Amino acid sequence: MPRLVTSFSNTTVKRLRSLREKKARRAEGLFLAEGLRIIAEARDSGRLPEIIAFSAEGGRHPLAAEIIAATEAKGGEAIETDPDILSKMSGKDNPQMLVAAFRQQSVNLTDIDRGSAPLWLVAQALRDPGNIGTILRTGDAVGAGGLILVDDSADPFSVEAVRASMGAIFTQAVVQARWPDFLAWLRSGPGQLVGTSLKATHDYLDATYLAPCFLLIGNEQQGLPADYEKECDLLVKIPMAGRADSLNAAMAAAVMAFQVKASWRN
Amino acid sequence: MPRLVTSFSNTTVKRLRSLREKKARRAEGLFLAEGLRIIAEARDSGRLPEIIAFSAEGGRHPLAAEIIAATEAKGGEAIETDPDILSKMSGKDNPQMLVAAFRQQSVNLTDIDRGSAPLWLVAQALRDPGNIGTILRTGDAVGAGGLILVDDSADPFSVEAVRASMGAIFTQAVVQARWPDFLAWLRSGPGQLVGTSLKATHDYLDATYLAPCFLLIGNEQQGLPADYEKECDLLVKIPMAGRADSLNAAMAAAVMAFQVKASWRN
Repeated sequence: MPRLVTSFSNTTVKRLRSLREKKARRAEGLFLAEGLRIIAEARDSGRLPEIIAFSAEGGRHPLAAEIIAATEAKGGEAIETDPDILSKMSGKDNPQMLVAAFRQQSVNLTDIDRGSAPLWLVAQALRDPGNIGTILRTGDAVGAGGLILVDDSADPFSVEAVRASMGAIFTQAVVQARWPDFLAWLRSGPGQLVGTSLKATHDYLDATYLAPCFLLIGNEQQGLPADYEKECDLLVKIPMAGRADSLNAAMAAAVMAFQVKASWRN
Repeated sequence: MPRLVTSFSNTTVKRLRSLREKKARRAEGLFLAEGLRIIAEARDSGRLPEIIAFSAEGGRHPLAAEIIAATEAKGGEAIETDPDILSKMSGKDNPQMLVAAFRQQSVNLTDIDRGSAPLWLVAQALRDPGNIGTILRTGDAVGAGGLILVDDSADPFSVEAVRASMGAIFTQAVVQARWPDFLAWLRSGPGQLVGTSLKATHDYLDATYLAPCFLLIGNEQQGLPADYEKECDLLVKIPMAGRADSLNAAMAAAVMAFQVKASWRN
């Protein structure tokens, strides 16, 4: 049975709150997901939280009740608490009625079966966690296998990234790797590395994409470094009507990913 | 010559700060843009601020100095102030060195020359100002004429929307209209209304798009209302590999807009 907790100084409450910070997420190997929609998405992907906190109202929803029971049955912890405390956990004035901590799936490059999906997204030094979440969501939409984050990037397990992913954090493999390690792994098997560059001469609509295709997305401000572009098997350009920089990183990723998929249909 | 202002209670400082609130933006007809990049974008689009505030450092940049001088030459107000005050204006810890107030261009449907661009974006009841800014930026990238916001939507002149637009707020016409008024205007001339719907049978890659094409984007949570879908000349579906709702509104807008443009190239 879930315990009733009404104190901010409760250990579980403090532990959940701490997961808003990257340091605690790294130390614990956990991350926060908020709201029934995302938590149910996790369950549908075969994932249950290790800790779940809910308001009396949140716990009454049949689907929430089912997830709470399943969490406890698997040895996880469930606490009922009040909206004030949930609001502190979620950092929102209008708190979700459920907050849960999930284990970060630690995926290495060598764990990836590149043949399991025709398309993989690779993002270099992304700064905005919202962009990471949005790109994960796009990956889910196009049936990508996962997202490989190259170089220092924002934390894919931050609250903002998880929120923007709308549950795709549970369906997409997330790998963090250094560029040389990624390259060595990539070249150890089949795979076309495709970069988007304003300097490219190939139009993205005319190019031939080959599965498994690794779509490389550059940093929001600088785009891809020149030596990263050199490693690409194919460099394509998305022609812009407006200013050269007028597409943001997450948009460029979506337009490219859907075009790669579209090109395979013909 | 710009005045030096170091007091939070200065009238101009208070006026700029007030523009973070929708009520003040509406009353004044002004909005805030932050940072040299976006302010220079405005100048390149033929727009100068009515008020500009800058730090000593910010004012030393040659391009900033030019814009400050041009603002004053056109009767605008320029104040030099300190980073603390700029930080209060921009609501960021790491403030931009320039903050400017621009007049909102009030565009009505009847001001639009629909033949001036092949594509127009229409968004219904968008809630997230970041999405509005991102869609404006996409519109700029595909050479759309502007964005028509239908029903109650987040404020396109909010700080978040302007920031996400990366300057496209100055290149795209922005119209706010009620649905019946939009429909009446649309049907008074040529124009194909295209909606995206999960219930559609037409694949977005196989459809025929006709200029001027009005691309209708639904609300982030609910998508398009059924009676709005009924008014569309064409309803298309973007097939999803993952969950049905796995593309966000701004992503769907980008994928659709680039596909419409791509279809016209062949």
